[in-house]
Amino acid sequence: MTPGRAAYPTHRAARTSTVRTAAVHGTGLIGTSVALALASRGVTVHLVDHDPEQARTAAALGAGTDAAPEGPVDLVVVAVPPAHVASTLAEVMGRGVGRGYIDVASVKGGPRRELEALGLDLSSYIGTHPMSGRERSGPLAGTADLFEGRPWVLTPTRDTDTEVLNLALELVALCRAVPVVMEADAHDRAVALVSHMPHLVSSMVAARLQDAEETAVRLCGQGIRDVTRIAASDPRMWIDILSANPGPVAELLAAVSADLDETVEALRALQSSDEDKRRLGAAGIEDVLRRGNAGQVRVPGKHGSAPTAYEIVAVLIDDQPGQLARIFGDADRAGVNIEDVRIEHATGQQAGLVQLMVEPAAAARLSAALRERGWAIRQ
Amino acid sequence: MTPGRAAYPTHRAARTSTVRTAAVHGTGLIGTSVALALASRGVTVHLVDHDPEQARTAAALGAGTDAAPEGPVDLVVVAVPPAHVASTLAEVMGRGVGRGYIDVASVKGGPRRELEALGLDLSSYIGTHPMSGRERSGPLAGTADLFEGRPWVLTPTRDTDTEVLNLALELVALCRAVPVVMEADAHDRAVALVSHMPHLVSSMVAARLQDAEETAVRLCGQGIRDVTRIAASDPRMWIDILSANPGPVAELLAAVSADLDETVEALRALQSSDEDKRRLGAAGIEDVLRRGNAGQVRVPGKHGSAPTAYEIVAVLIDDQPGQLARIFGDADRAGVNIEDVRIEHATGQQAGLVQLMVEPAAAARLSAALRERGWAIRQ
Repeated sequence: MTPGRAAYPTHRAARTSTVRTAAVHGTGLIGTSVALALASRGVTVHLVDHDPEQARTAAALGAGTDAAPEGPVDLVVVAVPPAHVASTLAEVMGRGVGRGYIDVASVKGGPRRELEALGLDLSSYIGTHPMSGRERSGPLAGTADLFEGRPWVLTPTRDTDTEVLNLALELVALCRAVPVVMEADAHDRAVALVSHMPHLVSSMVAARLQDAEETAVRLCGQGIRDVTRIAASDPRMWIDILSANPGPVAELLAAVSADLDETVEALRALQSSDEDKRRLGAAGIEDVLRRGNAGQVRVPGKHGSAPTAYEIVAVLIDDQPGQLARIFGDADRAGVNIEDVRIEHATGQQAGLVQLMVEPAAAARLSAALRERGWAIRQ
Repeated sequence: MTPGRAAYPTHRAARTSTVRTAAVHGTGLIGTSVALALASRGVTVHLVDHDPEQARTAAALGAGTDAAPEGPVDLVVVAVPPAHVASTLAEVMGRGVGRGYIDVASVKGGPRRELEALGLDLSSYIGTHPMSGRERSGPLAGTADLFEGRPWVLTPTRDTDTEVLNLALELVALCRAVPVVMEADAHDRAVALVSHMPHLVSSMVAARLQDAEETAVRLCGQGIRDVTRIAASDPRMWIDILSANPGPVAELLAAVSADLDETVEALRALQSSDEDKRRLGAAGIEDVLRRGNAGQVRVPGKHGSAPTAYEIVAVLIDDQPGQLARIFGDADRAGVNIEDVRIEHATGQQAGLVQLMVEPAAAARLSAALRERGWAIRQ
């Protein structure tokens, strides 16, 4: 078996396709990645872009042909920026160039309402959103496996043709993504909750460090490192994303703001000389911490399930190359599967700590095996 | 060389010690860990606890003796809960049982003011705070390497004897920690900034998931996973921590709250029909995102420096044991040092994505080497 490919048998073997031809309008990162995935699985893909050079580039990458299809295609994928989704769909649906039509924009409510306002028959249209992305953009950033194992939201309505739903579901399968059916506005609220709101809050925590003293910043640990990681993203991309979904994000931020103000009150109460006030303050702090526990536990860990309670085996390393290789090799020889890993580098030193997360049953075995091989284990 | 120990030559070889005897008051996690570190480097440690059973347990672990010292010791380490620090210090300083005295409580301003109020001569005292901890507590959780490579804050004043400062600095060195000198209140503001405030904000983001629909929660990705990770911590411990430092934390939360409210305003403006209002809204969003960029960049990465811009080489894996070992082994054979790693497990699948962070110069070499070995690389 080829390592890393075991979970992905070539699709043709099992395939009973109804999507034989497709047209991808918009050959940026997402459009080109969809086209590459479809083309790699034998679908004839026609590439269209307002900039023909972009379409030619995507074609040169093996994503399909920039020649126009001779007749209607099975599925038209509209992968243009949110602001142009409705007009592009109206145009291609008007020309009847496909049996089914989907878009892949990151918000779903707005475009649907625009289409309805245009009085179009939407039985052949499904708004979708593949939950994948990356820092880079453009056709050259496209990759056939961009959607591998990621959720792909579909927002059919009761007017949607079942045949069109099945075409969309097959596209998702061809892209190796995991279909999730949702109502359009529910989708927009969901991405506000799991992505847009946390992104802004992470930025606000990070913003507090901007003018902090160097000695204070030196005390940063893994906690704030994780909380602020996504604050490093490109502002321009995020302005577009947030501009397309301001309502749900504002609602969530307002709720967080209310929690914040209550927590500030609770902290002030903790400073009171009045014993009862201090008790009330502590209760307020405990409330937000416990609600945080209850929410955190719902964040899916591996395999989309609630996170297993892994045991952590922590190993001290220095900065010599190959130490991670030796640790993982030793774990492998001990027959232990590493479920997750974090590397915490020590402040002002070459030293670091590797946290290996394993099934509780395997922790003792792993510690013993690594110690035997001479590793410094922190228990 | 023994892997994992290269960075830690046994200390005795190089040692020119003035700390030959120490007394540790309070044999919980921190006290026992300090005692274990000192004892392992040849210091005679006397263990004291209000619960003699605890001191006996620590002694049984090799942390020292629970017998009382015959004369004054070189250094007295007070490792009792914050609320008892001042009274314990007053007692031991009153009896003159040591040449120097330190505490290790997680806040420094309050205890110092209490001691000053007691009218004690503080020339032989330094408030300190080792920036290490773990989920578990009590002597059995103690470990000699708990402080390895972590910052250890010292808060001497101009009244502090230099000899006492040097005793404290030697203790930090014996514990393999990195000394950081700060003013007591500056320390309390710093830990509020890099630890206490982010912890509460993480809890508030997580709290929003508590009542979310399952389909929404399924869309969680690595971003919210990282932002909410620390929200899983034990509320009781955090109530104690926050109760000891409410002022600085409240100030920071209030600042975050102001940013939140402005951002809600900006998002509302984005919904306006007025073009100028929308432009103002976008500018407001861009401002908070850019300030987030500027703050995030200050979070120390490895070696306590600003994070290097690593390149990410992403490798698709399935869930077979040994794949990580093979990846790291292959990277090692390619002579590439992995600086950091993230494992993102795919939703509802066994598949996952391993993100290897390497020096930009090494990224291409690593990709090529891994591809050659049959790995599916996402570029």
